Amino acid sequence: MGKFLKKHYIMAPGPTPVPNDILTEGAKETIHHRTPQFISIMEETLENAKYVFQTKNNVYAFASTGTGAMEAAVANLVSPGDKAIVVVAGKFGERWKELCQAYGADIVEIALEWGDAVTPEQIEEALNKNPDAKVVFTTYSETSTGTVIDLEGIARVTKEKDVVLVTDAVSALGAEPLKMDEWGVDVVVTGSQKGLMLPPGLALISLNDKAWELVEKSRSPRYYFDLRAYKKSYPDNPYTPAVNMIYMLRKALQMIKEEGIENVWERHRILGDATRAAVKALGLELLSKRPGNVVTAVKVPEGIDGKQIPKIMRDKYGVSIAGGQGKLKGKIFRIAHLGYMSPFDTITAISALEFTLKELGYEFELGAGVKAAEAVFAKEFIGE
Amino acid sequence: MGKFLKKHYIMAPGPTPVPNDILTEGAKETIHHRTPQFISIMEETLENAKYVFQTKNNVYAFASTGTGAMEAAVANLVSPGDKAIVVVAGKFGERWKELCQAYGADIVEIALEWGDAVTPEQIEEALNKNPDAKVVFTTYSETSTGTVIDLEGIARVTKEKDVVLVTDAVSALGAEPLKMDEWGVDVVVTGSQKGLMLPPGLALISLNDKAWELVEKSRSPRYYFDLRAYKKSYPDNPYTPAVNMIYMLRKALQMIKEEGIENVWERHRILGDATRAAVKALGLELLSKRPGNVVTAVKVPEGIDGKQIPKIMRDKYGVSIAGGQGKLKGKIFRIAHLGYMSPFDTITAISALEFTLKELGYEFELGAGVKAAEAVFAKEFIGE
Repeated sequence: MGKFLKKHYIMAPGPTPVPNDILTEGAKETIHHRTPQFISIMEETLENAKYVFQTKNNVYAFASTGTGAMEAAVANLVSPGDKAIVVVAGKFGERWKELCQAYGADIVEIALEWGDAVTPEQIEEALNKNPDAKVVFTTYSETSTGTVIDLEGIARVTKEKDVVLVTDAVSALGAEPLKMDEWGVDVVVTGSQKGLMLPPGLALISLNDKAWELVEKSRSPRYYFDLRAYKKSYPDNPYTPAVNMIYMLRKALQMIKEEGIENVWERHRILGDATRAAVKALGLELLSKRPGNVVTAVKVPEGIDGKQIPKIMRDKYGVSIAGGQGKLKGKIFRIAHLGYMSPFDTITAISALEFTLKELGYEFELGAGVKAAEAVFAKEFIGE
Repeated sequence: MGKFLKKHYIMAPGPTPVPNDILTEGAKETIHHRTPQFISIMEETLENAKYVFQTKNNVYAFASTGTGAMEAAVANLVSPGDKAIVVVAGKFGERWKELCQAYGADIVEIALEWGDAVTPEQIEEALNKNPDAKVVFTTYSETSTGTVIDLEGIARVTKEKDVVLVTDAVSALGAEPLKMDEWGVDVVVTGSQKGLMLPPGLALISLNDKAWELVEKSRSPRYYFDLRAYKKSYPDNPYTPAVNMIYMLRKALQMIKEEGIENVWERHRILGDATRAAVKALGLELLSKRPGNVVTAVKVPEGIDGKQIPKIMRDKYGVSIAGGQGKLKGKIFRIAHLGYMSPFDTITAISALEFTLKELGYEFELGAGVKAAEAVFAKEFIGE
């Protein structure tokens, strides 16, 4: 246990901290799902989900992680041999590719350096070269690199074409601005343990009419993830819904609605700014060329054992951040500002990072990171 | 709600944060108290309480706040007309005086400046002048001023005399070193919502044989607080015990035992050091002439509206600290480091204080307080 009490701070990009007001909802009595009481809870919940997705389309929620929602998108949109454009600029772009492979898609890969963000121009070029592509798979916030793409600009390209734009908003929903209808994003998928401030275990997906046309045509095998079944039974679930997770989702969506989705986006932006300012003040570099406000990926400085950073932060300070995934293992570390986070959580993370870097022999002025973060917050709090 | 999520940080000297592992104990099924199961829970709990009091004497727990335990001490030790020496150097010294008045004691008051600490010499002098005094009432940690007295030194004086030393350890137990038996403190009283990390509602008291002699002789009216009834039914309660609070107390005492009481004292000392260093770095002054590690009382700087400090910290930053009580209202503010607190809680409090002081127009270098606190923690964490 060491000298101090070790409280636990989840500062990894999911799972994120779950507010007690949500956890206690999960502890309520499990009622039967085929009752008017529960159907009305589902109805209210899915209505509020539309607000967070910024859509008039139905949102479907089912028990699985975000990967299940990604699979639902692929299985329902891609038939064997269909051409799919897949952007791969990190671990979760790779996941789209793996799913498309599993369902026998004819993959056109836009392979980018990890940390790069695909541009609308690159999407347009790929579509011009592949006019028969049925779907474009993108990652709105690439959690493995802390990168956010210009989804609005990309949707401006795909909207005019006979192609369905799918985005993985697993880590982005409730963190990065996302206006599904206004921008014209056709399919949005997400999971519960990120901006929605819930434990893992629930996936959400929304599709517009353009996407539904493709769903009706898909010849891919699917059962649990067959979205037609969810559409038919809406707002009920075709199978047993995760009753207590739905209670928690209802509460989370109420909280987000009360705060206002624009405020939610804005506070993520400021926490991101503060983290970036702190990291810069410590003389460190960001990995991403287009950093988002979900998670900040920081390059491990020369001569420091990168794997030690998340380890010491977790074991000694109780602060769970993430290391690098795949080819970035040991080369970066990632501090999230995702979900139920206050400025003092960010300050805690930066402070623990300072202790950790000092211990590892990295040279900087103790307090410099926290000071830089405080300066960003002071501007917001008191205008100076 | 403002721009950010406002999490709640209880940094006042009680109630203190309750760990979730304790809260969930309170949510367990309420069983009947006259069952072997519950009696065995009581027994285990009160045994572990002895460890925290550092005594072989029985510890009694009953439903009331700390003031109830103080009343139990007075009602059981002081008969009308008995001479009692009462140290008054703050709000809680005043409470001893009020209780002694209510029970018709002949009060010898040692009245000190708020922020001063009574010395063993002052106690000795009062006892030499009043050899017929039956009881000495002291406040180990005077929460209203952030002062800790030399209780060990005082006990050295009273031990040799025919007088019972009572100390209010409501805020001190589980924070300041306290060795009831070794030092020879005759009566120790405490409450649940401080170092014991519980919600308010439970009081604990322990008495040695010297004190029990006086209890047997007391002619003061008492019923609920009649300690003879508790002694007789030990470990059971004479009336219905607060079953779920006992569950929580059991868990809290297990946690303290696992951590080790010396470690608990030591981490309070370091959090106190860090807070004092931060406050000094901000150019502020302490109130207390003998500051303790329960709560740090800081003088409001010239020209600043002192009442605004706790108000802004609570309403804008979610950080509940305390203002001044009684004659110190508006003149000090108090930041606790009591109970379930980590270094990052202290850093959070100092950071919120910095934002608050800036807003109120106090001049200092933003980040200086946090930097000074980090320097104290870095010494402990990484030895530099």
